[in-house]
Amino acid sequence: MTIKWDNFFADRTRHMTGSQIRQFFALTEKPEVISFAGGFPGNEFFPCADISAALADLVMKDGKEALQYTSTEGSFNLRSYLATRMTLEGAPNKAENIIITDGSQQGLDLLSRVLVNNGDPVLVEEPAYIGGMSAIKSYGGIPVGIKMDGQGVIPQELEQTIESLTAKNKKPKVFYTVPNFQNPTGVTTSGQRRKEVLAIASRHNLVIIEDNPYGDLCYEGEVPASYMALDRNSQVIYLGSYSKILIPGIRIGWMAGPEKLIGKVVLAKQTTNLCSSSLGQQLAYRLSIKGYVDIHITKLNSLYKQKRDIMLNAMKRYFPADIKHTEPKGGFFIWVTFPEYYPTSREILDLALKQNVAFVHGEGFYNKEGGGCHGARFSFSQPNNLEIEKGIKILGKLLHDLANNSTLKASGQ
Amino acid sequence: MTIKWDNFFADRTRHMTGSQIRQFFALTEKPEVISFAGGFPGNEFFPCADISAALADLVMKDGKEALQYTSTEGSFNLRSYLATRMTLEGAPNKAENIIITDGSQQGLDLLSRVLVNNGDPVLVEEPAYIGGMSAIKSYGGIPVGIKMDGQGVIPQELEQTIESLTAKNKKPKVFYTVPNFQNPTGVTTSGQRRKEVLAIASRHNLVIIEDNPYGDLCYEGEVPASYMALDRNSQVIYLGSYSKILIPGIRIGWMAGPEKLIGKVVLAKQTTNLCSSSLGQQLAYRLSIKGYVDIHITKLNSLYKQKRDIMLNAMKRYFPADIKHTEPKGGFFIWVTFPEYYPTSREILDLALKQNVAFVHGEGFYNKEGGGCHGARFSFSQPNNLEIEKGIKILGKLLHDLANNSTLKASGQ
Repeated sequence: MTIKWDNFFADRTRHMTGSQIRQFFALTEKPEVISFAGGFPGNEFFPCADISAALADLVMKDGKEALQYTSTEGSFNLRSYLATRMTLEGAPNKAENIIITDGSQQGLDLLSRVLVNNGDPVLVEEPAYIGGMSAIKSYGGIPVGIKMDGQGVIPQELEQTIESLTAKNKKPKVFYTVPNFQNPTGVTTSGQRRKEVLAIASRHNLVIIEDNPYGDLCYEGEVPASYMALDRNSQVIYLGSYSKILIPGIRIGWMAGPEKLIGKVVLAKQTTNLCSSSLGQQLAYRLSIKGYVDIHITKLNSLYKQKRDIMLNAMKRYFPADIKHTEPKGGFFIWVTFPEYYPTSREILDLALKQNVAFVHGEGFYNKEGGGCHGARFSFSQPNNLEIEKGIKILGKLLHDLANNSTLKASGQ
Repeated sequence: MTIKWDNFFADRTRHMTGSQIRQFFALTEKPEVISFAGGFPGNEFFPCADISAALADLVMKDGKEALQYTSTEGSFNLRSYLATRMTLEGAPNKAENIIITDGSQQGLDLLSRVLVNNGDPVLVEEPAYIGGMSAIKSYGGIPVGIKMDGQGVIPQELEQTIESLTAKNKKPKVFYTVPNFQNPTGVTTSGQRRKEVLAIASRHNLVIIEDNPYGDLCYEGEVPASYMALDRNSQVIYLGSYSKILIPGIRIGWMAGPEKLIGKVVLAKQTTNLCSSSLGQQLAYRLSIKGYVDIHITKLNSLYKQKRDIMLNAMKRYFPADIKHTEPKGGFFIWVTFPEYYPTSREILDLALKQNVAFVHGEGFYNKEGGGCHGARFSFSQPNNLEIEKGIKILGKLLHDLANNSTLKASGQ
């Protein structure tokens, strides 16, 4: 008898959605395509020679440990370093509060597994990081978006949503946020907003998941104190990652939180993949403890700042004046909003792809019908300076043509 | 308000159980303890110098790729190599049938996520690999053990269990097995048994998950053809791993199966950790394609054979004659059965730990009350030759003392 796989798949697979961005992978790999789609770091900035030397040395000296399994919690050395680093940044932590994860994505998966029941509403930013919503949805959670402005989520919207869900006997337990240089908008939640959000969380007994992969990539000014640094009630769980500040290919991130929560997460991770790569953990530790990562971050900030400036300037120069975009002070992303008289962002993307330029249309970042259909995420992290200029110029011409067409239409000709 | 974490944990966390073995980790790390508990590979066999050189070279030459994210499916080169390797071993596969996972443990987690509904019975060996059962249980599945003998699972027991579950309207969909040098018994399912099991699976529309981390570590004779090689109905999913044949510290394994199933698993993995370590994938590929891994396996087999022989000989020499054990032809594990007039294996373990010798008592490998309470898993992979001899000698003395006590008791004195 031949297996009919559809009869074999578990009910929860209905909630599994692929990331549009990951589906793009094959397409945007084509050398002729200029892609503003992926949120991958620019690999021309990878310090290959230094990493090559560090790996060779650590495996020669400590290979017996660095090539073996680690405990599920992860390397004590690395966790101690991260605890000290976070403590110095104002969020007191100990190694016991920290678990090493496969990037911050695994943190989101494990937290959803441990905190989200089937049917639970989970508060997210609107628009929100697709991978965060996918993790929530894969455990049957329902992302509920909270509107944002240039200062981050709007506190009144957050409180009203909590109250209206609570009135329906669906009180939310968790708010998931990327407070620094948010994916997809690039917006940083202001210090004042963080305090307001934390006060609301405290009033309503809400746990905040603070996902911070981009915070160190700051090209102007400083980022405000983290939620975890401001927290006085142990209601913040923090996710960090080496993917953007060093390299993603070792799959190393971390989660900091109250010991009781971390204990459950350790149990969940044990079943999932036993432990994160010890080779990756050792590399991250060696390069961190010697201060190398911090120096590398300084270099990255000057290099990514260039890319950001080129994209922002090109948008100002080539895009029609009625197209708005955010002006992020760090990270990888710019959010573009097309006026409603333009085609949808999905339609614009289809036209752009014909000219070998890619971005991400906005719908995937919203968990509601029609949400994001006039928005788009542009990432400046991967293409080089010339490609950024060229790609935005091509899109600018396309958008001007569309604007002219819609003006013609609007005037009835 | 302070967070009461117990009110926050999802219902599924009730199913999460820690591995006794992983909990041992701290204890057995003490230098004075001789541990037969962990199933870790012997790290004195890690080819540190060669891996150090290979890593240095690949990062210098291909760092831009090797340090970046990969696709969720994993490196096409590595998948193609694995497909060819499996095809040459009699199980035809293409790269498209394969996804790279974080060791075979992640394969078990992803398959449980994709195939197991809450309350589903899942057939497993009895005793079974703890991590396999934990993965099943963490999604609400219920492991149902099938009795084994020295030839593997007993086909009549398998069929009767299927029929009795089907009669209760609980028809199982999946049978999970480690056919080569099984964890925990060391037993290899014979070729004849595999055919019988496959025929039953075909009659009852059952999917077989064939978990094969140890198959290449064969110290005598040859392993029978894999279930996947024998399968004619695409009803076998195969899990492989580099953890035991090369190193575990890169967290690289793979899953081969029908494309439709692999497609779902890719979706599930995307949310879980985006992709496995590209550095680990590149290393595994480089060392495989040059034939290095195969040569290394030959060396490992001669080294582990020594350890196995020393443990088997020591058990024969030092253990009381009424204590039975398996005689595995490969892998890492020997299963010891104490007669019922001895204390339970948990009690014996407590006594052994006082003398700084550790093994794993049998209960965790059974999903039923009282199961395994007279069995124990002994691993010879990690301790060195001298430690194996010494540890078994200490245990032998302890067991002789217990035997004398129980003889005294039995004779009423």
